[in-house]
Amino acid sequence: MTYKIAILGASGYTGAELVRLIATHPMMHVVALSGDRKAGMTMAEVFPFLRHLDLPVLQKIEDIDFTNVDLAFCALPHATSQAVIAALPRSLKIVDLSADFRLRDPAEYQKWYGQPHTQPELQAEAVYGLTEFYREDIRKARLVAGTGCNAAAGQFALLPLIKAGVIDLDNILIDLKAGVSGAGRSAKENLLHAELSEGTQTYSAGGKHRHLGEFDQEFSKLAGRPVQIQFTPHLLPMNRGILATVYVKGDAQAIHNTLLSRYLSEPFINVLPFGTLPSTRDVRGSNFCHLGVIGDRIAGRTVIVSVIDNLTKGSSGQALQNANLMLGVEEGTGLMLAPIFP
Amino acid sequence: MTYKIAILGASGYTGAELVRLIATHPMMHVVALSGDRKAGMTMAEVFPFLRHLDLPVLQKIEDIDFTNVDLAFCALPHATSQAVIAALPRSLKIVDLSADFRLRDPAEYQKWYGQPHTQPELQAEAVYGLTEFYREDIRKARLVAGTGCNAAAGQFALLPLIKAGVIDLDNILIDLKAGVSGAGRSAKENLLHAELSEGTQTYSAGGKHRHLGEFDQEFSKLAGRPVQIQFTPHLLPMNRGILATVYVKGDAQAIHNTLLSRYLSEPFINVLPFGTLPSTRDVRGSNFCHLGVIGDRIAGRTVIVSVIDNLTKGSSGQALQNANLMLGVEEGTGLMLAPIFP
Amino acid sequence: MTYKIAILGASGYTGAELVRLIATHPMMHVVALSGDRKAGMTMAEVFPFLRHLDLPVLQKIEDIDFTNVDLAFCALPHATSQAVIAALPRSLKIVDLSADFRLRDPAEYQKWYGQPHTQPELQAEAVYGLTEFYREDIRKARLVAGTGCNAAAGQFALLPLIKAGVIDLDNILIDLKAGVSGAGRSAKENLLHAELSEGTQTYSAGGKHRHLGEFDQEFSKLAGRPVQIQFTPHLLPMNRGILATVYVKGDAQAIHNTLLSRYLSEPFINVLPFGTLPSTRDVRGSNFCHLGVIGDRIAGRTVIVSVIDNLTKGSSGQALQNANLMLGVEEGTGLMLAPIFP
Amino acid sequence: MTYKIAILGASGYTGAELVRLIATHPMMHVVALSGDRKAGMTMAEVFPFLRHLDLPVLQKIEDIDFTNVDLAFCALPHATSQAVIAALPRSLKIVDLSADFRLRDPAEYQKWYGQPHTQPELQAEAVYGLTEFYREDIRKARLVAGTGCNAAAGQFALLPLIKAGVIDLDNILIDLKAGVSGAGRSAKENLLHAELSEGTQTYSAGGKHRHLGEFDQEFSKLAGRPVQIQFTPHLLPMNRGILATVYVKGDAQAIHNTLLSRYLSEPFINVLPFGTLPSTRDVRGSNFCHLGVIGDRIAGRTVIVSVIDNLTKGSSGQALQNANLMLGVEEGTGLMLAPIFP
Repeated sequence: MTYKIAILGASGYTGAELVRLIATHPMMHVVALSGDRKAGMTMAEVFPFLRHLDLPVLQKIEDIDFTNVDLAFCALPHATSQAVIAALPRSLKIVDLSADFRLRDPAEYQKWYGQPHTQPELQAEAVYGLTEFYREDIRKARLVAGTGCNAAAGQFALLPLIKAGVIDLDNILIDLKAGVSGAGRSAKENLLHAELSEGTQTYSAGGKHRHLGEFDQEFSKLAGRPVQIQFTPHLLPMNRGILATVYVKGDAQAIHNTLLSRYLSEPFINVLPFGTLPSTRDVRGSNFCHLGVIGDRIAGRTVIVSVIDNLTKGSSGQALQNANLMLGVEEGTGLMLAPIFP
Repeated sequence: MTYKIAILGASGYTGAELVRLIATHPMMHVVALSGDRKAGMTMAEVFPFLRHLDLPVLQKIEDIDFTNVDLAFCALPHATSQAVIAALPRSLKIVDLSADFRLRDPAEYQKWYGQPHTQPELQAEAVYGLTEFYREDIRKARLVAGTGCNAAAGQFALLPLIKAGVIDLDNILIDLKAGVSGAGRSAKENLLHAELSEGTQTYSAGGKHRHLGEFDQEFSKLAGRPVQIQFTPHLLPMNRGILATVYVKGDAQAIHNTLLSRYLSEPFINVLPFGTLPSTRDVRGSNFCHLGVIGDRIAGRTVIVSVIDNLTKGSSGQALQNANLMLGVEEGTGLMLAPIFP
Repeated sequence: MTYKIAILGASGYTGAELVRLIATHPMMHVVALSGDRKAGMTMAEVFPFLRHLDLPVLQKIEDIDFTNVDLAFCALPHATSQAVIAALPRSLKIVDLSADFRLRDPAEYQKWYGQPHTQPELQAEAVYGLTEFYREDIRKARLVAGTGCNAAAGQFALLPLIKAGVIDLDNILIDLKAGVSGAGRSAKENLLHAELSEGTQTYSAGGKHRHLGEFDQEFSKLAGRPVQIQFTPHLLPMNRGILATVYVKGDAQAIHNTLLSRYLSEPFINVLPFGTLPSTRDVRGSNFCHLGVIGDRIAGRTVIVSVIDNLTKGSSGQALQNANLMLGVEEGTGLMLAPIFP
Repeated sequence: MTYKIAILGASGYTGAELVRLIATHPMMHVVALSGDRKAGMTMAEVFPFLRHLDLPVLQKIEDIDFTNVDLAFCALPHATSQAVIAALPRSLKIVDLSADFRLRDPAEYQKWYGQPHTQPELQAEAVYGLTEFYREDIRKARLVAGTGCNAAAGQFALLPLIKAGVIDLDNILIDLKAGVSGAGRSAKENLLHAELSEGTQTYSAGGKHRHLGEFDQEFSKLAGRPVQIQFTPHLLPMNRGILATVYVKGDAQAIHNTLLSRYLSEPFINVLPFGTLPSTRDVRGSNFCHLGVIGDRIAGRTVIVSVIDNLTKGSSGQALQNANLMLGVEEGTGLMLAPIFP
């Protein structure tokens, strides 16, 4: 059985990462690629690193024939995705990598994204794509909304702790370090090599980063009461990788035990021995998440470090994992690539 | 008037940074350089970037004639410095860049450095080298102990706030990001380019980093009661720069005002407009510290970001600033170089 | 059918790269790993990025039971390999990644490596591992000597041109740019991040680089007369990748045609359209070689650019390709991973 | 005596580098800064690293009062400069950093820049700004045309050799490696960190790079007959620095002697001991050029390596050096900053 796949928005980094992963997937075949401004170009021109693959030429979305497509990945910019997905055939399974369908509440969407949602029915239908926590819903879903990459890194560390009640819900702080590919391939002065290399700074600090909408939604839902965290992202001079340093009040050993037992049978979430903390290098290019726990010298305070590759487990790898579930394929298919180091 | 300067440990990064800064200092002349394993080599061989300068050949410390030296910078490894400094003539002014004389309490020294201090009288004599807070003592000192680079970055943000009583002393957390030159020039597997570039991880997490000894000492002294902070350093793929993200409970506007008025007349400490946060790139290669303040979305929580160049304001620049004071030279002499960007 | 594999020298970068590649190989199973100084450690401790794999603990070579091993990869330092391989059972197939068996002539070995070869019979037996040019010999070989990574990059560009007689043999110049992982994982001052990042310099310039021994051997053999090239390697601030800029006298179009037809059916060697030159980024982490050809404005002069990943096609990927041939497995098995970008 | 300086195009990297250098210049005072799209902004907003300086607000060029300006640096894009400079008062001394006035021959300008020159009289008036070779002309000039950064690196290596007749004029090849700041601050996809870091590729290969116009002009003029070289630039993942590997036919020792005697009294050009080759790191942020010479194993072939910082000696430092000459100030004033390492 081979499933026919379309990738909308294939000229960006997450689109290319999907192609890279699907290249060795034994049951998926890419039949259509869209790239609006680059329609008519081959992928070898847009991404020479994919030159060895036999891939369809980039098209405009409206020129794609979806009748033979089983599943579409939608890797388009935020806001654009709503109208595009609304226009796709209802028979199509869709994994959306944008932010458009992550938030359940239209008011929250408007608050964080600054405009009203235009497709509230689709918003209601979409399943939140954090695989390890919505697996059964995703299996049955037609439309899955991939999580924010930062939101994924933070939730892997925190969801089991909130559920187990082992941390103080009013004192959660995430100081996050993110590689630059998370900002996408758009030509902006602040993303130039000369601006970004050899230094670091915060971005969207002070509680303004949009992934807070996801944290609020998921943490509050799980806790059964409002939970607000502090979250300060930093941009680092590296291409891939997210490291979330999560500060909580709670017993370190209990926290480690909780994570260890929760993730025991999860193939992609790896809890390190107590006191060992992970590096982003150890998950680069892979779908793995490494989690480490250490107690602070101040009793009752614990630091959890969560690392993922933003383009893989944080975006395209997660999307493929969800697509596997939606198509009834074994969940890890095409995703067992080892990280690449150095 | 020209002062004769010796630099002990000139084959390391802080030693070379001292040479770089003194190169344009109109009143200092380097007359002796030591480098134990590299004795007999020229600086052009050890550091080709200093090739244009007319510098003395590296010697063993015991071969240096200190009779004509006015001031010695001691950039030797921790523990080594104690015996070396004890053996120097009492007439010599000394700025030590190691950790050996930073802590006042012998018990604290033993706790953080794992061995007893061998020169308790010198330890008692030494003045802590955070220029902006010990200026008058430094002017009169014979022996000044340069601060830890991380400790400097954190104290610039926090000392005025502790003094002004505008923050909760029991909830101070520093998440710090440091460039790799802070680890020195020793050949270690974990400092290789292939190990360090394109990724990040914590180090000395969980309250084990030795600069906590300095934080404890200075914060507790100023507060008049024990203050313990949380402190998690991260190693970043960049050569220079420290960014300390400081999380406190306190009113953001009051905090900004406190810093603004405290540093109004300080030439090297620059407080940015409220809500603007700094980048390490903006102080690279310079003696400046940039401080930014922003309020979190959770009322009563504030984020302060402090950036310095670890080799300059965090070490050799600070040392030169102190040496200027000790010699009666205008404090900023040789230190007004603009940062280098990109 | 599953082949049992041993990797000697698994604590270095090429050893780890072999493990990474074999991780998704359907017909190979790693049964033994050696790492002399790290014997007793798990691979998760030595290379945390391999943590998700079920791998044997590192052993000393003398503790490995080779009776059940089908093939050993030997990723040990130069000179060490000779004695180790001589002591292995004759029934074992061996792919050596060191320089020890690359040169056929003992005098050449002594000239380039500064000491006599201790195993001249093995030297005579070994097959040079440049797969695309020694495929049939490799199929039948017991001992294959992996090529130098720089030597591979240069030969892919030049061997077909020498064979076709389309270039002047007395005016061949390779200006090569290499990533730092080629220098291995040993802790040396000149390989530190702070020494290597943000700059470039030559190394082994002036005709002193040891891979010249391989160029001389292979080019002279193919040409049927002595061929000496100029070769200047440069070290670049990147972890993976080799870019060889090859300057020749010859007609650009004829050169492009020669490469195109020679590599038409080679799965891993990709000749770009005339006038298009490749980037190292486009082969990162993969077994591909991209070749580009452009004519200079001076008639009769041509520039060929050859890029590979030094750890993959330049070393461990090539080794796996050869091992597949030696075991009768389809040559590309485990090697069709797409490059990783960004 | 203080000279009043205007910098046109101060929102780009070369403009900012001029401000950085002039910051410690005792006889220059910046009185006007232009930045067309950023007019009205402060330099602290455009370049926060210059925050500590007291600088004029960015203006539109037409709003600047040039009556009190002694000298203007013009750091505008190519083509734009012609009209702007034509409109400036004739009493103003001008150092142009663009390519507009580098070529003497209008036909050559049209050939390399694809359009006719609009100010042929100014083109005729302009002096080529390679200080060490046009010093006396520059002293008397009203309009100096700064050289291309790559062109400077190559000419420092080759001009004395051409003059001395110690190399074969028909076999000169420059393989050049350039940092990314040379491409300026414009937001282009190919200059993004994610596109540029961790890899390398050529650009403008095959004899198409515009700096060839300068090489042709200066080499042919000096040789008294047409000289055409080969020139292949590569883009490297570093912000600053150019390394030109220059391949010639000629005796290595004679070449070294020629360079050594030619540059003996030049403060900024440093010839290393025979056989020692330089790194870009050793001139970073400075106005120095380091030159190294080594003989190849093939008799009669020599490799010269020339390194400069593209923004300093390759552009803004050179410009300041020329401005000093034009104003009668000691040539090295404000330029003796040591390089910055690491």
